[in-house]
Amino acid sequence: MTGHTSEADAYRDDRAHVFHSWSAQRALDPVVVTGGLGSTFWDADGTRYLDFSSQLVNLNLGHQHPKVVAAIQEQAARLCTIAPSFANPTRSEAARRIAEVAPGDLSHVFFTNGGTEANEHAVKMARLTTGRHKVLAAYRSYHGATTGSITLTGDPRRWANEPAMPGVVRFFGPYPYRSAFHADSAEQETARALQHLEEVFMFEGPHTVAAVILESVVGTNGILVPPPGYLAGVRELCDRHGALLICDEVMSGFGRCGEWFAVDRWGVVPDLITFAKGVNSGYVPLGGVVLGERVYETFAERPFPGGLTYSGHPLACAAAVATIDVMREERIPERVRDLGERVVGPRLEKLRDRHPSVGEVRGVGLFWAIELVRDRDTREMLVPYNASGAAAKPMADVVAACKARGVWPFTHFNRVHVVPPLVITEEELLQGIDAIDDALDAADAYVA
Amino acid sequence: MTGHTSEADAYRDDRAHVFHSWSAQRALDPVVVTGGLGSTFWDADGTRYLDFSSQLVNLNLGHQHPKVVAAIQEQAARLCTIAPSFANPTRSEAARRIAEVAPGDLSHVFFTNGGTEANEHAVKMARLTTGRHKVLAAYRSYHGATTGSITLTGDPRRWANEPAMPGVVRFFGPYPYRSAFHADSAEQETARALQHLEEVFMFEGPHTVAAVILESVVGTNGILVPPPGYLAGVRELCDRHGALLICDEVMSGFGRCGEWFAVDRWGVVPDLITFAKGVNSGYVPLGGVVLGERVYETFAERPFPGGLTYSGHPLACAAAVATIDVMREERIPERVRDLGERVVGPRLEKLRDRHPSVGEVRGVGLFWAIELVRDRDTREMLVPYNASGAAAKPMADVVAACKARGVWPFTHFNRVHVVPPLVITEEELLQGIDAIDDALDAADAYVA
Repeated sequence: MTGHTSEADAYRDDRAHVFHSWSAQRALDPVVVTGGLGSTFWDADGTRYLDFSSQLVNLNLGHQHPKVVAAIQEQAARLCTIAPSFANPTRSEAARRIAEVAPGDLSHVFFTNGGTEANEHAVKMARLTTGRHKVLAAYRSYHGATTGSITLTGDPRRWANEPAMPGVVRFFGPYPYRSAFHADSAEQETARALQHLEEVFMFEGPHTVAAVILESVVGTNGILVPPPGYLAGVRELCDRHGALLICDEVMSGFGRCGEWFAVDRWGVVPDLITFAKGVNSGYVPLGGVVLGERVYETFAERPFPGGLTYSGHPLACAAAVATIDVMREERIPERVRDLGERVVGPRLEKLRDRHPSVGEVRGVGLFWAIELVRDRDTREMLVPYNASGAAAKPMADVVAACKARGVWPFTHFNRVHVVPPLVITEEELLQGIDAIDDALDAADAYVA
Repeated sequence: MTGHTSEADAYRDDRAHVFHSWSAQRALDPVVVTGGLGSTFWDADGTRYLDFSSQLVNLNLGHQHPKVVAAIQEQAARLCTIAPSFANPTRSEAARRIAEVAPGDLSHVFFTNGGTEANEHAVKMARLTTGRHKVLAAYRSYHGATTGSITLTGDPRRWANEPAMPGVVRFFGPYPYRSAFHADSAEQETARALQHLEEVFMFEGPHTVAAVILESVVGTNGILVPPPGYLAGVRELCDRHGALLICDEVMSGFGRCGEWFAVDRWGVVPDLITFAKGVNSGYVPLGGVVLGERVYETFAERPFPGGLTYSGHPLACAAAVATIDVMREERIPERVRDLGERVVGPRLEKLRDRHPSVGEVRGVGLFWAIELVRDRDTREMLVPYNASGAAAKPMADVVAACKARGVWPFTHFNRVHVVPPLVITEEELLQGIDAIDDALDAADAYVA
């Protein structure tokens, strides 16, 4: 059916008929990607790129993992889809495996097609479980593009979508490098960020707060790893005030942080975890919510007012089953933890020493950010917040330099993220970091 | 990877780990579906059901159409996924085909994972294109489960989700059998429904209205086919007031009504059509928005503030390409129109004559409703609006009688819908209607 279209046709039809996400449409000049394998993908001209973005940080097992491809093909031959009201062996297996790797009592899985639907439904569950309406959400966060999730979002993608869902209240999370709390140590950042959140609870009326939602490790908005004690402190605040804790692990989950879920690093058990992306590397659209007994009991005898035609889609679930099996067989979380600690961290530290444009490097597992500045003392961002066009040229230079060196980078504002597939070889990982090292000369040129 | 789980395990794991849509969880006793082919699916015990629901009215090509299965398998071998910023031959082909079958100037496709995300993004496009905020949405409608779409929804699934998105204003659509306008003919219903909508425009301030959203043929809430002139009248009202017309064809599109899109039946061209389900029969989660030049130009030079990790997912697009090719080869829209006019309509009329519980039969293509009443004169519904438990027993009796006769029905409130796969054989179609005919004896027992 497909494949007979020439690449020229593919480009022409894209420009004529595909409306792209988050973009002005006319000026787009997309690369026509025709294939990929492992940590590499290539375009129609045969140019190959080392994928240091895991596409949109979803491709945890890299392109075309043979066991996941086979599982999809086998399920396609067996039964592509069935309505969510039925039970289905593949759906059951996927749910069981996810429950097995989820922390604490989180053992029930509501499946969606992606992260935004997961966060929408998690908030719905929290509101009905508590009988409260307000949701506390963080600045510097992304939770999805639908009305509820974009309201929860604390980045500029929210602006054009407001006014949207009522009842969302914003707080600041910890970010030692740019502390909102004028802290001068990680311990102080934790203490003051928790004090701030407690004050938000207090001024909003604790009995009105259904949930706190946050990314366990903030993703696109900066790879902000919570300092020690922060997540446990938020858990304690939620418990004290009867609110639920929703951890968005759409990006940080399924091995990205060297754990099945990032919260495992700190031994914190939320009431709800939302996931997508890494659950099946995005080979088939899938997301969901893992929930514990308190939420389950709310809807044990009373109908849950949410659902989706493709909830628990067998094809997507087959890919999840295979992905989790591969992650176990290949010991991906352990591998990621090792690569992060032994390779990425030390290499990025060296890169920071070499480049005056690097203000900070931070991360965990294979989830790292290189934060670029014009001045290390003032920490002025290399490009302004939410810059575009000419104001964003320094970052465009870095991106172009990476691509010229065969690396497809993930960048956001004034940061380069190091977020390759979790199956990347050590050699590829070093090769990619070396390319970024070279590319940062372009950023250094802007340092005062 | 899958398939080694026994059916007993599948049931046990479902009960322990799968959180189901729109349900109280504990009492569920789901059928374990292990396979399907064409218009039939079967459970773990080998019991076979004729699928008169097309699952959730998505399975337009029936279960396991070999050409669609092959297209998925081939695309899985080639490239499962790629980020939405790239061009990809399969994504381009799917967008071109959808543009080819869409009416008027609707030639740009924004892909989503399903219907709710499609409606969310269509509203976003309409608001930013017009610079206005209000959206007029109909009672008796369903548009999806995320915050924006559930607010647009005009059925009880909205209630537990409110307050949700601001700016939605409700109107009544035409429904001759239960006219909100006390009309006694289809012509009068059209005229009065348009007058009502015009008054809603007037009282809301026409210059504040970004869009009217409606299902071209209302689906789950009653298979309400708009009377002649209604859709053209809404189009004219929107034009006159500078509002956009969004037609939700998630259920009614892709052949269900005997046309590529239901609006084609009346020659009306909306500004935005939302789709999902039939576009690829739900074999892989896919939805989207088809939009014309006015909306495209809004985002030609200015970024569109929406997007999704899996927008234009290659695996989903491969299934769409194959589905549209099959629909063309097998002349599905023409076949559906013929079956609707020659077989279903006449047979349901006879069934109405035979059963005092049948108040009205109505529909188009393979999209029909049998509306059940306790009394034909008063038109009292067989079960009350949104009934559950004991109050819904008459409908539960009908459902049980259908299943006992090997037919899996789609029911909603006091209605049985006839919505089989579009590839159903004429023999199966008659067999299914005969089973419903028998089953309606259970409804007749409640007629006064």
